[in-house]
Amino acid sequence: MAAEIVNPRSDSTTDSGIQRTSAADTGADEPFDPAFALHRGGKMAVQSTVPIRDKDDLSLAYTPGVAKVCSAIADNPELVHDYTWKSQVVAVVTDGTAVLGLGDIGPEASLPVMEGKAILFKQFGGVDAVPIALATTSVDEIVDTVVRLAPSFGGVNLEDISAPRCFEIERKLQERLDIPVFHDDQHGTAVVTLAALRNAAKLSGRTLGDLRGVISGAGAAGVAIAKFLLEAGIGDVAVADRKGIVSRDRDDLTDVKRELAELTNRAGISGSLEKALAGADVFIGVSGGTVPEAAVASMAPGAYVFAMANPNPEVHPEIAHKYAAVVATGRSDFPNQINNVLAFPGIFAGALQVRASRITEGMKIAAANALADVVGDELAADYVIPSPFDERVAPAVTAAVAAAARAEGVARR
Amino acid sequence: MAAEIVNPRSDSTTDSGIQRTSAADTGADEPFDPAFALHRGGKMAVQSTVPIRDKDDLSLAYTPGVAKVCSAIADNPELVHDYTWKSQVVAVVTDGTAVLGLGDIGPEASLPVMEGKAILFKQFGGVDAVPIALATTSVDEIVDTVVRLAPSFGGVNLEDISAPRCFEIERKLQERLDIPVFHDDQHGTAVVTLAALRNAAKLSGRTLGDLRGVISGAGAAGVAIAKFLLEAGIGDVAVADRKGIVSRDRDDLTDVKRELAELTNRAGISGSLEKALAGADVFIGVSGGTVPEAAVASMAPGAYVFAMANPNPEVHPEIAHKYAAVVATGRSDFPNQINNVLAFPGIFAGALQVRASRITEGMKIAAANALADVVGDELAADYVIPSPFDERVAPAVTAAVAAAARAEGVARR
Repeated sequence: MAAEIVNPRSDSTTDSGIQRTSAADTGADEPFDPAFALHRGGKMAVQSTVPIRDKDDLSLAYTPGVAKVCSAIADNPELVHDYTWKSQVVAVVTDGTAVLGLGDIGPEASLPVMEGKAILFKQFGGVDAVPIALATTSVDEIVDTVVRLAPSFGGVNLEDISAPRCFEIERKLQERLDIPVFHDDQHGTAVVTLAALRNAAKLSGRTLGDLRGVISGAGAAGVAIAKFLLEAGIGDVAVADRKGIVSRDRDDLTDVKRELAELTNRAGISGSLEKALAGADVFIGVSGGTVPEAAVASMAPGAYVFAMANPNPEVHPEIAHKYAAVVATGRSDFPNQINNVLAFPGIFAGALQVRASRITEGMKIAAANALADVVGDELAADYVIPSPFDERVAPAVTAAVAAAARAEGVARR
Repeated sequence: MAAEIVNPRSDSTTDSGIQRTSAADTGADEPFDPAFALHRGGKMAVQSTVPIRDKDDLSLAYTPGVAKVCSAIADNPELVHDYTWKSQVVAVVTDGTAVLGLGDIGPEASLPVMEGKAILFKQFGGVDAVPIALATTSVDEIVDTVVRLAPSFGGVNLEDISAPRCFEIERKLQERLDIPVFHDDQHGTAVVTLAALRNAAKLSGRTLGDLRGVISGAGAAGVAIAKFLLEAGIGDVAVADRKGIVSRDRDDLTDVKRELAELTNRAGISGSLEKALAGADVFIGVSGGTVPEAAVASMAPGAYVFAMANPNPEVHPEIAHKYAAVVATGRSDFPNQINNVLAFPGIFAGALQVRASRITEGMKIAAANALADVVGDELAADYVIPSPFDERVAPAVTAAVAAAARAEGVARR
């Protein structure tokens, strides 16, 4: 398959990607579209890691030899981690309700993203992963289904599930399972954002406690980033949804946003995103909206602008650079790409390595710190976060997460 | 891993396999036990089939390039078969209630068997497969769970689920899903048994219609073999459970066995297995019990004895050979091994190749005929069924099943 897909002339990094391609077009497009060519037949496969050359091999890998291994696990269930791939394999679970910028496109249409996630787990973390796109959007049915799948997997990566359902699904699964359950759209994004923010602050000799941040977007990523930055000690952070700043005086808040109103916005700002940005030190965009240049200009001197919407940043980097000391985006064609692939492979690899029962706040903080530290002495305004292809990243995150799991008492070995 | 496992001195083909190994022993055993050594870390992995060498590759296999593929599938769901691994991957689903000869050992302990099955799918059929051991034994919960998983898979192989639950689970899934659902313990065994029986009959110039068979065991395999042999035109077949022949005059029959009593035993025999064997042409053992030599001696001249219980055949081949023209077992260390691996990889490969919506009786008959025909002119009393390692088998079964699916109108391409 590789032969047909490699296309150095691909310009898809600057392709909006989210415009619809109608089924009628597809056939005609494909020969000219490297994305369709690459996806034909899927992007992954299963392989045996043991030889099956003859009946002796067969009688070890299957009956009768396998029976004694099954019996040993029946007598001591912990042995399932030693004698199956359970401790190496993660279920990448979605219901297809919030896929990329495409929204609720259903489980089948979400599969290319889940396969992509699965091969990134393998490529960057050495973790096996299986795409599981579910034919239900019911919170309780999703939870029950994943609980029933759990014996076969060492961890669960929730993916592209719409808010606020994603919060309840993750919480219920974490209550019922003794393996890591991690909604990457929340926590992966939060970990990489914190790593970049730490380095941005370091660059200007400030600490997180000195900073007031504003987040545009109160979905999975926005809520998780706000909570995580507070966890990490940011001075203050306010979150804006489509109706403006999430504040205690609003009467239109969901439960999740009401909790956010309690935790965030200590400055008590009400009103528009623009109002909150006046004098702010940090802008974090996870909304897909647009921020007017005047609002960026109104931020404090030496501000940090993380405009992470894909493919169109809330503030174009060229405009942001006119006012900000550090600019980051979600795109690979600008410096400082905030990309989840910097976090989730190492976070799961570390958690699986020590058979962690869950992924704690401490493990996520450790992942963010390890990720920030990879930059080291090369720290610069256009280099506050490593490249996804920096081979130091996954080992550093893996080791930090495994150590944190042990320190926090959630490691089983 | 390969290096540590190859052990030409392995004698596990003659190992009972089902004696329990206590957890305490395991550690001590392992260095000396090739089965434990081979299973350490599991037997399978996931691999990417596309390169991810740089940001261009990443932007094709993942965002933003993947988005247009998702959109195309959202617009035309059939495209999920073209642009994901769905049409190449089978879920190997169990609840761990009837694992090998070990019985209800639970989902974790069943995983080594499911992994073994998965790598056999790959090795022999080129089909990707994922082990799914479920933490529920409720028929409806299993059915609902598999229905929710279905978008991610091209087929479902049910495995090691206890009777009679397995019949209801398979039926309900076949009613609700438009992908193949196949309980291998039933139909795989039946297909290979029919292939061997056809060749045995051919060897002695008889047809199936000339034969009266007796099956010991009324579980998943026994019930499926009985129905399938009748489908294929056997003269008569009777099935015995622990209480004797399943006959209309019994008042202790489950629904499944009552149906069996209507379909089978046209001779109207009641009483013991031994009674039914007197003058019978075929014995098929899928019970794990023992048949006394006298009962074998009472069969018709030129009888066929398929004593398929593993690891201990109902009749030892040496005894069977004193009376029978053809002897088969489930073991790899005797001639004529009735091994499901001869059927399920090719059956699923053929069904997936044409995107069959289900696996029909005609497809199973075609698989059995193709399997029997592989033996060809080399047909002999000690060679009525090919070796699992005969490379002609899977392609022959695959082609026959795909053609039958088209002929029966269940192929989608």
